[in-house]
Amino acid sequence: MISNFITRVKHAKVASIPIASVSGETKDRALASMAKALDLNREIIISANKKDLATAEKLVDAGKLSKSLLKRLKVDDIKIDEMIAGIKDVIKFENPVGKTLSALELDRGLELYQVSCPIGVIGVIFESRPDVVPQIMALCLKSGNATIFKGGSEAAHSNRAIFDVLVNAIEGTQGMPSGAFALMETREEVNEMLKLDDYINLIIPRGSNEFVKYIQDNTRIPVLGHSSGVCHVYVDKQADLEKAIDICYDAKVQYPAVCNAMETLLVHRDIAGKFLSEIGKRYEGAGVEMRCDDPSFKLLKDKGFLKAILHAKEEDWSTEYNDLILSIKIVDSLDEAIDHINRYGSHHTDAIVTEDKINASKFVSLVDSSSVMWNASTRFSDGFRYGKGAEVGISTNKIHARGPVGMEGLLIYKYVLLGKGDKVADYVGKSAKKFTHKKLSSSFSDKMDGIR
Amino acid sequence: MISNFITRVKHAKVASIPIASVSGETKDRALASMAKALDLNREIIISANKKDLATAEKLVDAGKLSKSLLKRLKVDDIKIDEMIAGIKDVIKFENPVGKTLSALELDRGLELYQVSCPIGVIGVIFESRPDVVPQIMALCLKSGNATIFKGGSEAAHSNRAIFDVLVNAIEGTQGMPSGAFALMETREEVNEMLKLDDYINLIIPRGSNEFVKYIQDNTRIPVLGHSSGVCHVYVDKQADLEKAIDICYDAKVQYPAVCNAMETLLVHRDIAGKFLSEIGKRYEGAGVEMRCDDPSFKLLKDKGFLKAILHAKEEDWSTEYNDLILSIKIVDSLDEAIDHINRYGSHHTDAIVTEDKINASKFVSLVDSSSVMWNASTRFSDGFRYGKGAEVGISTNKIHARGPVGMEGLLIYKYVLLGKGDKVADYVGKSAKKFTHKKLSSSFSDKMDGIR
Repeated sequence: MISNFITRVKHAKVASIPIASVSGETKDRALASMAKALDLNREIIISANKKDLATAEKLVDAGKLSKSLLKRLKVDDIKIDEMIAGIKDVIKFENPVGKTLSALELDRGLELYQVSCPIGVIGVIFESRPDVVPQIMALCLKSGNATIFKGGSEAAHSNRAIFDVLVNAIEGTQGMPSGAFALMETREEVNEMLKLDDYINLIIPRGSNEFVKYIQDNTRIPVLGHSSGVCHVYVDKQADLEKAIDICYDAKVQYPAVCNAMETLLVHRDIAGKFLSEIGKRYEGAGVEMRCDDPSFKLLKDKGFLKAILHAKEEDWSTEYNDLILSIKIVDSLDEAIDHINRYGSHHTDAIVTEDKINASKFVSLVDSSSVMWNASTRFSDGFRYGKGAEVGISTNKIHARGPVGMEGLLIYKYVLLGKGDKVADYVGKSAKKFTHKKLSSSFSDKMDGIR
Repeated sequence: MISNFITRVKHAKVASIPIASVSGETKDRALASMAKALDLNREIIISANKKDLATAEKLVDAGKLSKSLLKRLKVDDIKIDEMIAGIKDVIKFENPVGKTLSALELDRGLELYQVSCPIGVIGVIFESRPDVVPQIMALCLKSGNATIFKGGSEAAHSNRAIFDVLVNAIEGTQGMPSGAFALMETREEVNEMLKLDDYINLIIPRGSNEFVKYIQDNTRIPVLGHSSGVCHVYVDKQADLEKAIDICYDAKVQYPAVCNAMETLLVHRDIAGKFLSEIGKRYEGAGVEMRCDDPSFKLLKDKGFLKAILHAKEEDWSTEYNDLILSIKIVDSLDEAIDHINRYGSHHTDAIVTEDKINASKFVSLVDSSSVMWNASTRFSDGFRYGKGAEVGISTNKIHARGPVGMEGLLIYKYVLLGKGDKVADYVGKSAKKFTHKKLSSSFSDKMDGIR
């Protein structure tokens, strides 16, 4: 099994070379063919999914799997419609490969172009959502990357059916190389995959925090993503109370199960009394459990919030609840809020509510997170809302791509130097020629007359 | 020692927050102060260096260190002049922090800015060149990064003297935080440093291939660099012979000890006879040893090149000689050349010599290297020649930064969302507001009225 696995990864690596320079037009034809194939093969996919569902239901009944998994696992006509719509969206994107990012004349007739290109081989490791396959395959194909998929065993039949339908469509498209996409199924293969830093250039994990953390901790391959979302809202003493209530309610209650929901509310001492009693009513009404530091506990207790409040423990400050639970802390200053966020947060998304521009400016400058917000809910931090069309993931990495990542996270660049027989010896020593280092307005593709 | 080391790394991490938002003007004053301090403390630095040289000379005499190390280790007035000039160059660069990379209106009064910022804490591990300290410290300071340096024990006195002079200058500058720069000295600290992925965001290694490889293999912190430079020139059948000879001579002979020198020459069968006999004369004259595949060996032998030729072994195709040695292989096609390069090369820099635009286009598209060249010497692949002003390193990574990397390799970005109390709930459901996703021409700093 393992040797077969490595053979397929090697094939993908080989195919990563030709797929990198397939034309935009050919890639769009392959994507259209993928969308059509999903539509034509609904029955095959849904009946494969029924096998997975049947097994999963038994495990849920036996208490071995959670019920929410069934919802993620299920593929019906509506989900297939969404998969098809997602692929059609990717067709609309401009071809991201071969774009000129910079152009510089080094000397007359010696021109340097920085040109976008795919990363190479992407590894996608996901848990139980079969819809990850068409979504990521479309993005990887459009960006010219070969891709190795590894799905959860609960979705094995569904993933295999969807994968085969899509790959047949791609490989039946004239001009597309074969072997660029592979699907792995056994658990051993994940750990094998994590070792293949000679073949796989980037891993995209999709699943629970523990799952992402396991992957990050067990590979030297770069991992694009985040393992937790401990997001904060800081209500400054100069906050507009109405904005603060809107934002803090939205950030916690609108959809608490996601990484960009608020987990800790920080509030300035001078505004805490008024603000907490008002937001407390809203939270109590929504069934939010409030885990408070001593001063906020006392304050809310005195206001009569007895049912909804608890004492926060040290671990609460770094806990992602993903639920209607919130930790609350009163701070003495903006600096204390910033220090708390940088210390306990996950560098994902943090917001300040204030009418004071200097405080806002200080907050967005000093909070070391992938998204920082002034008078807006943390829930906006998302690829779709950020206008990326499709989201590869939300990254808390400090290199390559940070925050909500779209197609740009699947791309890198190469330098192309076009000369006329130029040699470095002419630019060295006493009578050395000088570099002009003059910006060019031409693009690489114009320069090459559209020849691929 | 170790606990003291970790304390200093934690201090640097803390200082990475304020240094990220120091103004460009303050950073330039600190840089000017660094340059002045080097000038005023020449004697201290040179006398510290003499201690290192004395120890190193004994080790060279005992055959424990190579003579070339002494040259790299030595600090004299000329080297100090170069360090000062290097720092002054960095003053001239624009402040790279706080630049608006993109700006998007999500909806009226809800604006998203992608703003450049430092990475955080950079780890610099280098061997025996004390001039790495001022060069990298200047670049890291200008880009707002805290930095941990670890130099070789051979240069311990020199590094400490230079480091102390520079850090005193920085920390004596009004507005600069303290503790952002630290110097480590013991060997154990390197291995400790490689484990600190919670504190150090990027490692820049400077030293031999083996040294860089060791670092890459022993840390989960991203490493910016390359461990080898197996560069190729492919002489196509459509090559202009004069250009081919100029380029192949320059790429091998002009300075063979560097990573962008050619190590393998590939030549098309149809042009091999004429080309190899001409370049062979030039190489023989320059003392280049030619390690040939069977066909090129036979060809050169028949032409009478008996002294300079040897049979290549399999390992030659992946060897970086860094010397006047060259492996030579005759290929039947452009495809064979591309396959050879992608298989045996180090993805650093590879060139084609041809007058055929279609072949050139195919080569630059399909060769998976950080720099690809058409009719130019591989030796051009370098930060200074590429107009970057200063070079952080040459990267063969497929994410973040590739090829010669300047200041841009020390930067990432954050998203800043500016709202007016906006909540996601308004954009969800039946009467959902629509996002406008309209490109903005404003910059973040204009928007914030220049408030830091």
